[in-house]
Formats: sequence, C-alpha cells, structure tokens
Amino acid sequence: MNNYNYCVPTDIRFGKGQVECLAEEIGKVGKKVLLVYGGGSIKKTGLYDKIYDVLKGFEIFELPGIEPNPKLSSVRKGAAICKENGINAVLAVGGGSTIDASKHIACSAFYDGDPWDLVLDKTKAVKALPVFTVLTICATGSEMNPGAVISNEETKEKLEINTPILYPKLSVCDPTYLFTLPPRQTAAGTADIISHIFEQYFQPNDGAYITDRLSEAALKTCFKYGPVAMKEPDNYEARSNLMWTSSIALNHLFTFGKGGAWSVHPIEHELSAFYDITHGEGLAILTPKWMRYVLSDATVKRFATYARNVWNVQNTDDYEAANEGIDKTEQFFKELGLPSTLGEVGIDDSQLSKMAAEAVRTSGLSDRAYVKLSAEDVEKIYRMCL
Amino acid sequence: MNNYNYCVPTDIRFGKGQVECLAEEIGKVGKKVLLVYGGGSIKKTGLYDKIYDVLKGFEIFELPGIEPNPKLSSVRKGAAICKENGINAVLAVGGGSTIDASKHIACSAFYDGDPWDLVLDKTKAVKALPVFTVLTICATGSEMNPGAVISNEETKEKLEINTPILYPKLSVCDPTYLFTLPPRQTAAGTADIISHIFEQYFQPNDGAYITDRLSEAALKTCFKYGPVAMKEPDNYEARSNLMWTSSIALNHLFTFGKGGAWSVHPIEHELSAFYDITHGEGLAILTPKWMRYVLSDATVKRFATYARNVWNVQNTDDYEAANEGIDKTEQFFKELGLPSTLGEVGIDDSQLSKMAAEAVRTSGLSDRAYVKLSAEDVEKIYRMCL
Repeated sequence: MNNYNYCVPTDIRFGKGQVECLAEEIGKVGKKVLLVYGGGSIKKTGLYDKIYDVLKGFEIFELPGIEPNPKLSSVRKGAAICKENGINAVLAVGGGSTIDASKHIACSAFYDGDPWDLVLDKTKAVKALPVFTVLTICATGSEMNPGAVISNEETKEKLEINTPILYPKLSVCDPTYLFTLPPRQTAAGTADIISHIFEQYFQPNDGAYITDRLSEAALKTCFKYGPVAMKEPDNYEARSNLMWTSSIALNHLFTFGKGGAWSVHPIEHELSAFYDITHGEGLAILTPKWMRYVLSDATVKRFATYARNVWNVQNTDDYEAANEGIDKTEQFFKELGLPSTLGEVGIDDSQLSKMAAEAVRTSGLSDRAYVKLSAEDVEKIYRMCL
Repeated sequence: MNNYNYCVPTDIRFGKGQVECLAEEIGKVGKKVLLVYGGGSIKKTGLYDKIYDVLKGFEIFELPGIEPNPKLSSVRKGAAICKENGINAVLAVGGGSTIDASKHIACSAFYDGDPWDLVLDKTKAVKALPVFTVLTICATGSEMNPGAVISNEETKEKLEINTPILYPKLSVCDPTYLFTLPPRQTAAGTADIISHIFEQYFQPNDGAYITDRLSEAALKTCFKYGPVAMKEPDNYEARSNLMWTSSIALNHLFTFGKGGAWSVHPIEHELSAFYDITHGEGLAILTPKWMRYVLSDATVKRFATYARNVWNVQNTDDYEAANEGIDKTEQFFKELGLPSTLGEVGIDDSQLSKMAAEAVRTSGLSDRAYVKLSAEDVEKIYRMCL
C-alpha cells in the first residue's frame, strides 16, 4: 500500500429536498451569489424557480450557457461578474461542466490576471470563493473533488486545474433531479462512472486490498442500477445508488494507497477533442477494446479477479475468466444502448495516428499507465474500434 | 436510501514516515502544543522521542497517563493546561482513548465551566482547539470521526460527545506503529473494527445497496488480514489494510443512506462498565450470540447475504447459509484467540439482569435497533454467553 494523503472536506447533503439547506448554508458566507448553469434545462424542470424561491432575499447574479465542455471565455465572464459585484459565493446548478466552470471562476475571482494562467500554473490559485453545487447529472464526481477541466478555444487546449482550494464547500445531491435525465445521458454518465472506477482499479497494486474491494462494490452498483435507471427514470433507489457511487468514484477513495496514470480517459480525450463526441460514449467504445489489448500474462490475474468478484464468473481458468469479464462489460455497454464502434459516432480512420500521437504526448500513457502504451499501441486500439 | 449529510474534513496522512508532516502542519496553527498520551508505550517504541525530534522548536506541554477508558479528571487536567498556557494545538499520540480525551480537552479549552457540561449538552461546545493525532492502535476510528467517549468517575457515567467541531484536523496513520502492538490488542482491535461495520450493516436498509457492498468489502478485509497481523506483527500489507479499514469503518461511509441504533455495542458497554473487561473481547463474545438470537424470518435474508457475499457461502437455503455465516464469524474470533464465553473473562450470572436493564435504558435497543430488544431479550443473550 502506497503512502497516501486523503482529505475530502466537501459537505454532502444527499437526498430529497436537501436544496432547502442552501439559504442557511450560503447565508453563512454572504448574500451575493453567482448562479452558474447550462443550457436552461433547469428552467424546464422547475429547479431554476426553486433555487430563486429558496434564495429569497439573496442578490443573485447569473451566468447561464455553460457549454458541455466548459470554455475559458465563460470562465472569464464569470470571474468578471464576481470582481465587479463583490460576489460571496458561486452556486453551480448542473453537471460536471457547470461545476468545473464554477470552480475555475471561484479561484479566478481572486486573481488579477487571465484565468488561464491558473490552469497553466495552479500555484497561482491561492484563494477561491466558496463553491456550492446542486447536481443534476451524475458522472464526473466534480461535486466532491477538487478538479476542473477547462477548454481554451484559442489554443485548442483542454486542461485540468486541480488544487485543494477547489473542493466544493457544499453539494446538494438530490436523486430526484436525475428523474428527467434523458436515457442517452443516463447511459453515457453511467459509462463515465464505471470508467473512473476502472482507471483506478486497473493500476499497479502493492497490497491495497481494501481499496480494490471497495472499487468492486461500486462497479457492482453501476452494473446493477444502470439498466434500472434506463428503464425506470424515476426509480429513486437506482438514481440514488448511482448518484452516491458517482461522487465517491472520483474523490480518491478508490485510489487510496495506489497510484499511476489513467489509460482509457486520455485515449478517449482525443476523440472528444477531434470530433466533439460525448465523452461517456467514447469511453464505452474504447474500454472493452483496451481491455482486450492489454490482457496478457502480466495482467490476466487482475482481469480474472475483476470478472470473478464483480460479475461472479466461476471459471477457474484465468484467461477464460478474464475474457468472460470483458465480454460481460462489452455486453453491458451495448445493453445501455451505447455505441461500440467509432463508425457509429461518425469517426473514420483519417485522424487515428494523429490522435494516437496526441494521446500519448499529453498523458502518462507511455510511462506511468497500468500497461504502458506507445502511439502505435493506441492507434491499434483505435483500429480495433473501427 | 435515506437522506444523509456527510462531511469528513480530517486530513489523513497515511503511510511510513508521515509523522514528519507534523512540524509544518501544526506550525500553521501555532507553536504551543499539548502532547497527550497513555501509559508510556510510546517511550519504549521510540515514538515519543521521534515526536520531540519532529517538533523541535515547539513548546511542548505534556498530559501523560490517559486511561484505557479516558476519565473526566484527565480531561479537566488537560483543559486547565490549555487555558493556563495558551495552547494552540492538542496532539494525541495513541489509540482511541487518548484521541477521545484530546478531543474533549480541545473543546473544554474554550469553555469556562466544567468539561462534563459539554458531554451533557454538546451545544455548549462551540469551539475547539485543532486536534492532531498520531495513531498507534487501530480500532475506534476516532482519528477520522467527531466522537469522544468519556467516563465520569464520580457519577459512574460513560457518555459520548459528538459534534463536527471535534473532527481531528489531521491524523498521521503510519502502519509501522502497529508492528509493536501485542497480539491480544491486535485481536481485540480487529473485533472492534468488525463490530463497527456490523452495527451499520445490520440495520434496516431501504435500498442503500452501495453502502452495504462497501461494508462487505471492509469486512472481507478484516477477515483476511486479522489473522495475518496476529501471526506476522510486522506485515505491512496486513497492518495497512486494517488501519485504513478501521478509519473508514466509523466515519459514516458505511451508514450512508441508512440509520438506526446500534445493537451489540450497548450490550457490551455494560460488561465493560461493570467488569472493566476489554471492549473488543466483550464484542467477540456477544456478537455471534446476538446474531443467533435475532435470526428470524425477518432477518434471515440479510444474514444469508452476509454469509454469501463476505464468506462466499454457496448454500442456497437462506437459513443454512445464515447459520454458516454466523458459525464462520464465531470461528474467526476463536482463531484470533478471543474469548467466546463470559466465564473466560471472569463474569458470572450475578449481575446479568441489572446490566440488561441498563443496556436497554441507556441506548436505542428497545425502539431503534435492527431487531428491537427488551431487557429480557438482552439478559437471554448474556445467558447464551455464560
């Protein structure tokens, strides 16, 4: 088990009606709030009105229109509003993108230069406004972690800022807000949660037994409730289990005592960057192929353990068990209606080598991943997905 | 899944050599430290000298001699030292008792009246000195939770104070400090960890699937590594897995979305109070008997699930599976060298009805427990242990 520092100070308010707490909790830090949200679905669902109802007596400024991959230009707008109006708190109502933008705004509010500087050098982010979140999509875990991914439209870079001052102060996680989530987003979100757990589970493990067993518990939960949430969007049990699993899937609990670079996320990253496809769909396409590609004598035991502990595979032959587990994973994504080939999301072979080179260049794939991958390896994995 | 508030701000520094961080981290709050410890084993192991070495340049005041069940008189002494000397931080080096006393001291330092007032009315505990801990016994989880159990020698009461201001600021969890733990304490500590998980696992569950699977992961870890730590006291993998499991076993993760009163702890509580036996030993005696007593048509499914998911019991008959799981639990405690009857710890039948009445009077056993128990029920469980 590796040495590990763990500190997750976010106050989680989980369950029906918890949004009511915002008046008291935000009230502790001030009355001027920047409300950040996305495309306006919160107006259709009534959550927007609910927020205004709860925050009666507060002075609310708005930054709507946060993009699915939040842009630096939005962060700049938000930071300017904060500075001009002496904002006390940033309230993100939405999913990972809205929360990520809000975090970046929160630290940019105390920085005199351009917000992008903080992404390039996080030591410049020394202070942040308290961020409150109301989660409406569960997938990224941003509501309970200190990371934010921002896209710079000018330089075409998509980078993360990650520093402890960006843990949300408080997150409202009300599973009923997921009831209106369309099936496609439910499926893609579930694939994203699963991939987050895989990225930590498939890493070198020097005896972090408890961490791997906790990860398996979370994987079982996704595999059990993903299909239920697809068929019954207002199933509270399914939504609540997925929602909490999503939060703990990316708050370091499943990497405690472990370490290493992620594998499938950076490979997918380029698909989204080049073709603007849905992140969770890209992950669903790539994950089973990546598993087959890296399966070897060095990794078979871990894949067999995954198959046996998560899918209850009884096969005593390690390779056969491993392949059964991978088959079941692939089948699961298909049953959620997720694509399994690049063709289905409109990607041909014209950019594969370029994307592969970028994936390796911008990540730890070639030196710190579970199985080290060169650009040639990554291109082969892309080709397996055609 | 029940509504749930979850916020665990303690900074965990886990692994070899992490004690070095104390100079920097305590330094952030001041230079005057109250060092709290127990019977002096830290002097034998060299940890005491190490602390002084790390905290060179700090002004260290000492409160040694904290009892296994920490006494109010010790808390009074500690609070007086804090007030008289303008202490900035309380540093607990030891196990749960030392940490509990330190927490109570930390909030008493800001209270003008007697520390016991805060136990009787926690709303009077409004502020606390930051508590830092260096863990040398893993069992109670006090290093990562806001509770402290204190014994009042005058009134013979043993009560808990539990309020968010008592979360330790930072806890050093170095598994190598467990290498010198005697087998008996290792066994009793492991039984305590297991019981903490049971108390949360065996509660009404309205769909908190993820929480129960996480609990099973932790139980498997205890059952795997408890015996290893007994045979190989310096096995880092075993000690580290038990240490981290111990911390998360009692920081609300395993009760997330659930709720209800504990069962075996209050029944054991009276054994320790009347006969001063080791808490973990009392739990090992009582737990399997309690399981057999509450096993019924209403609970059999949960006990069968426990048996199958934790012990890999394959029996498809629920009652048979449940009983196999209970047998394995009982056998496990015996293999750790723990007692399985009250006679072994010198307890006869003279006080059973009195203890049973107290157990029910001072707890939620009769109205909020997984299976509600009257004083007659509790006495029957005691008699099963004779």
